[in-house]
Amino acid sequence: MITLFDTSLSLNCYKVRLLLSLLKVQYVKQPVDLLKGEHKSPKLLSINPFGQVPVLTTDSLALRDSSAILVWIARTFGNEQWMPRNAEDEAIVNAWLLTSAFELRLGPYEARLRKHYAALCVTGDKLSDNTTLALRLYENQLKDRDWIALSHPTVADIAAFPALAHCGDGDIDLAPYGAIRDWLDRVRNLNGYVSLTE
Amino acid sequence: MITLFDTSLSLNCYKVRLLLSLLKVQYVKQPVDLLKGEHKSPKLLSINPFGQVPVLTTDSLALRDSSAILVWIARTFGNEQWMPRNAEDEAIVNAWLLTSAFELRLGPYEARLRKHYAALCVTGDKLSDNTTLALRLYENQLKDRDWIALSHPTVADIAAFPALAHCGDGDIDLAPYGAIRDWLDRVRNLNGYVSLTE
Repeated sequence: MITLFDTSLSLNCYKVRLLLSLLKVQYVKQPVDLLKGEHKSPKLLSINPFGQVPVLTTDSLALRDSSAILVWIARTFGNEQWMPRNAEDEAIVNAWLLTSAFELRLGPYEARLRKHYAALCVTGDKLSDNTTLALRLYENQLKDRDWIALSHPTVADIAAFPALAHCGDGDIDLAPYGAIRDWLDRVRNLNGYVSLTE
Repeated sequence: MITLFDTSLSLNCYKVRLLLSLLKVQYVKQPVDLLKGEHKSPKLLSINPFGQVPVLTTDSLALRDSSAILVWIARTFGNEQWMPRNAEDEAIVNAWLLTSAFELRLGPYEARLRKHYAALCVTGDKLSDNTTLALRLYENQLKDRDWIALSHPTVADIAAFPALAHCGDGDIDLAPYGAIRDWLDRVRNLNGYVSLTE
């Protein structure tokens, strides 16, 4: 049974509903009222510590992030059309997934949020707030595990390392973030590690 | 032959160099001087219309976006450790790739850019600039093709559709963006399409 923790007017939730519909996948909607703060309720936070929708659950898993959920749906229910296995085509699709999650998110997506749902703008223009939010997410994730995504290093560790290792360049103090600092050392100890300036 | 169009102090380029080093992949660095504007030169724009580094090229392909490049490297040269094929593990890694490309990018990554490389901050706090940038990227991509990433619809189309279809909600006028409007109609004509409020 697939359950989608869903907010009807969320465009990120809508992405997921759209693909589920195109692929004729049966699922149950579990409405989450953002204006009532239900995404920050203990129940939701236990499923997604980020306190965001959409979240897709099955009997055995709980997935966050609309792009990651789209890929999972495509892999699980689609043919290769929606998410190719060929590494080159996959890279082209991935590049555009990232574009929708950054350039598009900061443009039209943000414009709509600010106009209609200002209270829900988690990412405003405040650099220090964005920084604290990001560091807390990683610190929380790493506090009882060695690597970010799985039980071993993955591209998720590589993708996060440069910005976290170079917090000092932006005058950000990592002293309160012991789990992040321990993880930075684990990355630095990987065979073949190079620093930024090597 | 793998060539990396690379700026030594770019953290997004460093992600790619780090994984290439960990996987012992031989490659050639092609330095790009951002301060001289080389990333906006005709040569670079012909390889990556986004005018960004890193770009990874081989004899037959040119890939943009550091996260997409990381996944391609992992698929091509790594074992499954770095980017799993199992859909559930892949979704977990993807969620964290997206987190580093958004939350981390807007936090520590941005703090470093603003302090040391303010001239290179493509994404400032100006919503209208971000919107114009995003719309131009998609318009340019779609002006001579039907779908965003490949010759058929993929998750890249699904991920982009909600924000582009709902530009009006943020008072953004799509009148100058004919290719985007035509593409929106193509998505709406897919079998199984649902609107935001259905």
